[in-house]
Parts: sequence; C-alpha cells; structure tokens
Amino acid sequence: MSSVPVRVGVLGYGNVGGALVRLLATDGSSIAARTGVRLEVARVAVRDVTENRRSALPDGCLTGDAEAVVSDPTVDVVVEVMGGVEPARGLVLTALKNGKPVVTANKELLADAGAELFEAAAASGVDLLYEASVAGAIPLIRLLRESLAGERITRVMGIVNGTTNYILTRMSEAGASYAEGLEEAQRLGYAERDPTADVEGLDAAAKAAIVASIAFGTRVVAGDVHREGITHVSPDDIAFARRLGYVVKLLAVAERAGDEVAVRVHPAMVPASHPLAAVRDSFNAVFIEGEAVGELMLYGRGAGGTPTASAVLGDLVDAAHNLRAGGSGRTAALDRAGVRPIEELSSEYYLNIDVVDRPGVLARVATVFGEHGVSIRSMEQEGLDEKARLVFITHTAREGDVQGTIRDLRRLDAVKRIGSLLRVVGT
Amino acid sequence: MSSVPVRVGVLGYGNVGGALVRLLATDGSSIAARTGVRLEVARVAVRDVTENRRSALPDGCLTGDAEAVVSDPTVDVVVEVMGGVEPARGLVLTALKNGKPVVTANKELLADAGAELFEAAAASGVDLLYEASVAGAIPLIRLLRESLAGERITRVMGIVNGTTNYILTRMSEAGASYAEGLEEAQRLGYAERDPTADVEGLDAAAKAAIVASIAFGTRVVAGDVHREGITHVSPDDIAFARRLGYVVKLLAVAERAGDEVAVRVHPAMVPASHPLAAVRDSFNAVFIEGEAVGELMLYGRGAGGTPTASAVLGDLVDAAHNLRAGGSGRTAALDRAGVRPIEELSSEYYLNIDVVDRPGVLARVATVFGEHGVSIRSMEQEGLDEKARLVFITHTAREGDVQGTIRDLRRLDAVKRIGSLLRVVGT
Repeated sequence: MSSVPVRVGVLGYGNVGGALVRLLATDGSSIAARTGVRLEVARVAVRDVTENRRSALPDGCLTGDAEAVVSDPTVDVVVEVMGGVEPARGLVLTALKNGKPVVTANKELLADAGAELFEAAAASGVDLLYEASVAGAIPLIRLLRESLAGERITRVMGIVNGTTNYILTRMSEAGASYAEGLEEAQRLGYAERDPTADVEGLDAAAKAAIVASIAFGTRVVAGDVHREGITHVSPDDIAFARRLGYVVKLLAVAERAGDEVAVRVHPAMVPASHPLAAVRDSFNAVFIEGEAVGELMLYGRGAGGTPTASAVLGDLVDAAHNLRAGGSGRTAALDRAGVRPIEELSSEYYLNIDVVDRPGVLARVATVFGEHGVSIRSMEQEGLDEKARLVFITHTAREGDVQGTIRDLRRLDAVKRIGSLLRVVGT
Repeated sequence: MSSVPVRVGVLGYGNVGGALVRLLATDGSSIAARTGVRLEVARVAVRDVTENRRSALPDGCLTGDAEAVVSDPTVDVVVEVMGGVEPARGLVLTALKNGKPVVTANKELLADAGAELFEAAAASGVDLLYEASVAGAIPLIRLLRESLAGERITRVMGIVNGTTNYILTRMSEAGASYAEGLEEAQRLGYAERDPTADVEGLDAAAKAAIVASIAFGTRVVAGDVHREGITHVSPDDIAFARRLGYVVKLLAVAERAGDEVAVRVHPAMVPASHPLAAVRDSFNAVFIEGEAVGELMLYGRGAGGTPTASAVLGDLVDAAHNLRAGGSGRTAALDRAGVRPIEELSSEYYLNIDVVDRPGVLARVATVFGEHGVSIRSMEQEGLDEKARLVFITHTAREGDVQGTIRDLRRLDAVKRIGSLLRVVGT
C-alpha cells in the first residue's frame, strides 16, 4: 500500500460535498486499509467562504476560488459536486486539460456538455467518472460499462427520480391526490419548492440520456428524450390500474429499435408482479434486459448526501488506482444516436375519456379507434350521467395511431375531456 | 483497438462452457467493437472428446487433455467452468503458476480452496476472477470489490439459490406442498434428481462464505456458515407468515457482529414490503446494507448457461484488459475471520408447537419461554383437540436462549412436536 496520499480537490460543499468530506475524515484509514488508497481532502471550493467557516476542515482548505483548485498542481483528482452547467463545465474542462481525473455527480452537466468533456478527458488520457450522476448510490454506470461490457443490451427501464416515486407511492398506498403527495414530499425535503424538474420528468430525462448513451454506445442528449411528467396522473387512474393488477410508475425507458434507439420518460402501468412495482417511496431502481444476461435489476437510494457521496467515493478510489497505474479506464468517443420518434413505438395503452352519457356514444368512440387501426382489449364504463367515463385498454398499437385516435376523439361532441394516457410496460 | 486476439482456454463444455463458446462465436465482433478486446476460443477441454465431436468448434480445438490447455503457451486466459473441487483445483493452480489469468464460475472450488488459489494468483501477479460463482448473472462480486471498495458494509442478505426460491414461490403462490414444489422444480430442470445441495442450503452456504469474505475483507469458509434448509417448511408456516404480512424465503445472511462476522443460511420470514419479498420463481437477489450507501439490492438470473456465461464474459473482458495493461486487478490476502457462533445472535422468532389440548398447557409452555428470558410478542392457537397447535412470535431474543427454550419444551409431556423455527429478518 502506498503511503503517499492522493490529494482531492472538491468543487462544491453542499449535501454531497459535505458528506464526502465527512466520510473521508471518519473512514479515511479504513478506506485506505481496504483499497490501498489514502484519500486526503486538499482543497474545497465554496461559493461563500465565511458561510462555511465553522466546518471541520483544516485551516486554509476552504477557498472561494474554484479556478485555483482545478489549477493547483498539488491537487491530484477533482470532485465536482456543485451542480448546474456553468461554471461547472469550465472548471471540469480546466481540470481535465491540466491532466487531473474528474469525478462528477452532475447529470445536467453530462446531459448538456458530455461530448465536449469526454473528448477533453480522452485527449488528456485521464478519467472522467460519473457514477453518482444517475441513481445516486446505485452502481449502474459501472455495471453498464464494465460487467455488461460484452453484453448486447436490449432495454433499460428505470425509476430514476425519487421525488415522483414518493408521490406516486403515496397516491397508491394512502389514496393521496397528486397535490397532497407533492405537498408531503416537499415537507419531507424530497421535493424542491419548485418541483418542475422532478414532476415534469426533466431530471429523469437527463438521466435517461446518460443511461442510453452508455447502454447502447451511442450519444443521446436530453433533447432526444420524449418526456411526460406525472402532474396529470389522477387517483382514479391509479385505482383503476390497481384493479387490473398494475402499479403506476414514472419510468425512464431506453431501448433498441432496429438501428436506432428510443428513449422516453412517462408514467406507465407496470404489472404488480414486476420487480419495478415493488420499488416504493423515494427509492430508485433500474431494470436491464440483455440478450445473454436476461433480466437484471439494481435497487437503492437514488439521492441523498451520503448515498451519493458513497458513489463518488467508489469513483474516487477507481480514479486514484488508475492514476497510480499511470492511465485512465476505458473511454470511447461516441457517435450521435439515431433516435426513433415516439410515434413509431408500439405499446399497450390505457386511456380514459369523460363522455356525455347517451346511447350510441360508445359506438362512435369505438369507431374512431377502429379508423386508426387501434384495437381495444377492454372497455369499462365508470359513473353515469354527468360523471360518465369510458376507460380503455388497447392491444399493442402504434403510438402515432393512438395519438391520431386522441386527436379525432377530441373533435367528437360527446367527448368532454380526455384524461390520462398511460403506456403499459413490462409485460 | 488491438487486433491481436486474446486466446481463451476453456475447461469444461457443459451448459456454461457451451453458452460461452456460442456467445463468443455469434457476438465476438460486436464484443470487440464495444470493449476493444477480441476474444478467441483457442482450446476447449472436455471429458469425452467423441461425445462433443458434433460441436461447432474449429478442428483441433477440442481436447480431452485439460493439462495441455493450462500449459499451452499460446493460451492467454483460462476459463474454468467444469465444476467440483478436483481436478479443477490442480488445473487452476497450474494455469495461475504459468502466469495465465483465470476466470472461474466454480463456487465449491472457491469455498474449499479459495485461499490457496488467491495466493497463487497474487504470487504470479495475475487475475483470479469469479463473478459467475455467486448469483450467476448478478454482478455482485464486482459491486462489492469495486463500487463499494470504500464502503463499510454492515449486512448482506441474499436469495442466492434459485431452486429453493422456486419451490418456496410455488408453496406461497400455488399452495403447493414442499414435495410438490420440489417435484415441479425437478420437472422444469431447476432442481437436480438429488436436490440435497440446494434444499439443505449447502449451495447457498458456499456462496455465503464467498460473499462474506469479500464484503468484510476476511476469510470465511463454508464450514463457518450455520446452515438450515427448507425441507421442514410447511404450507401452514407459509400461510401463517402471509397472514402476518411476511413471505418465507431461504436467506443467506452475512453480517458484522462487533469484530466478528456472523454467516448463516436459513429459511426466514421477510416483511411483504421488503424488496427481497418480491423476488419470485428461480430469480436471485442480494440486499446490501452499508453505512454510507444505505440499502442496495441486485436482482437477476442466478443460474442458467447463458446468464452465467454473461458473467464469465464480463470477467474475461476485465482479465484481457488487465493482461494488456501488464498487470492484475486488486487482490489482497485475507486473514481468517472471527466467526460469531449462531447462539449469540439475536432475532425475532416464529415457532409452532403441536400440543395436547387441555387447560394449563399454554401456561406451562409460556413458563418455559419465561425461564429462558424469551419474551413472547404474539401467540395464537390453531386447531383443537388432536390438532391443537400453538404459534408464537417472539420479541428479539438471543438464539441460544431460544434453543434452550426448545430443548426444555421438548421435555414437556403436553408438547407433541415442535415444528418450524423461522427467524424474522429485514424489519
């Protein structure tokens, strides 16, 4: 075991940065014993030094000058846990160009500027590791990059946003409304005051892009991801799904579609017997299907300072080993993916339609389905008169045809409102 | 990408060996494209060459002489998928001494002769990789060795035997008896004609020893593992567990107990809301608890030729990369573990007792619990007269005290039979 410590520069001292510094302070010796690498916090860049003066860091360690950290010749490895695209992008680039491996937990940065950063890492021959950027403590990236390096992956489906999974769990198990679930999540600190990034699926879409890129070896960006959030999911949808043996989850799905990939985030009906259905509260899980490996799932804490710091630490140990060995792990430049438009995908669909309750309405509605070639597997009327609602499950249909059906249904006088559209996934 | 192929010698051409050879034949080019490593099957050692003459292997590739494979200077890496301790042990040792990295899927070999093999690998500075030896396609070993290298793991609980999980699933979901479940598992090829290794927990115990060794960095052998199988689990136990909100699973549990480790395999009652409860049929899963990472679970195919070959392939790519880089991954010699005896563990317990149905019996039985300091959380009488049975759930109690209670209960005239003892795990 080498006794020369690896000096770590940390950018950002929030939940994750703080937890990482604490982990290294309390467990440093046992980490060194287990891994043969002694990690030492050299410098920590914060926005406001005075705010953090009561931290347990040694004197002179804290700095307000992040540029100085990434240019410090005594810093061996840089950890970026500040979040956001700028100034993180510039700082990470400088660190890489200075020959310092970088470990980041920043999904926006990767989804936005990943290509540029990976090129810089490859040019300098150093690591750019990012296990903590997707699904926190779950070692998904390593699994995809290493264990499954030889595998032909066909589909990855994940619950990758803890906030929305918490809200949907409360709606499923406590009969809460969306608003109540959200309020509870905010009270517990699972959701931000402005929950848009979570509930509209933006966070999940950034993660889906990262996952799709690694799983299929092709560059996918957040803008490629078809995205629907959970704000329109109603307690009725969830109750109906349950009656049919399904649980409603917000899924990120990335799959091969011929030579292209299809990547999307949307609420979905998952069979109750599927392992993803048992993922409750703010937990994350990713279900992988591959030709040789069959079905594989990883489950764990998707967020939180300490679990995320644990993922950063795993990468740090790796980067330190590679640095000692005088090289970097495997990185490959990726070509831009061909992305299949959502209209060309196939699925079974659940949709509910509020209608005027009079004879002949079902026939007219069913005719519209038929005109678009969408075959109905089951139909149920709920409520009467003013509250009449038709609930449909289709056989497997093309998304474009279902969208066409919905467009034409909206034109019928008898149709008052088209509620949720949920795809059935995992059967 | 290097175009010089890495030449692979394969020992054994059964389910796993056959699947591996097929994978390399059909996916070799895409594996090379994805990983930068071209893997080529150089030689395959089989017990009986004539039996395999119709294989798709090139001429001269098959041989009955395994020694020749591990000594062949043109073989770069050896894959051992023959199973059993001998002659696998000698062959693997020779390969390692000849400087060839070895990838093995052989849990008996590792649980029996692991220390000797790891020493030989370290002495030659080559890899000995064994992802496929525990839980098939699930990348548990890599997770423990790499992603969680810096983590202080407190407990690992796994469903690591697909045969018993299939039988218990049939008993739970179809109301089958143990015998019916076993027969069905045999018919489907999940269980051997002689199912002892599976149903008595021997297979799970060997895997538990391997997992405990890596998770806690200390050498545990199969003989250290307290072991109980599933042959005594009855449909009544399962029904009762379900009524209380539990599912019965055969668990391998390895946990820290002060400076020692505790490793055991036994049927357990797992809360229905626990992720392990949702692991059905012949699937495997491993649930890990660590101080920083929180709770983590891996789920997948624990056996089968192709999934296991997929795990072997992941290791092969790793070994090839390390070979090219001129070294091996991290290996450390481990000290022998201090193992805490099962008597000193604590748990909640479920047990059922067939009794003579007359006044005062419950009081006498309860007195025995009290004398041993075992506190009763709930008691229920099922059946009357000849079929009277008392079902107890205890508060957390010391195993030694529970065993003492059972010993003394057996001495009571009113006690006809003591049925299952199940530990409650995962609350």
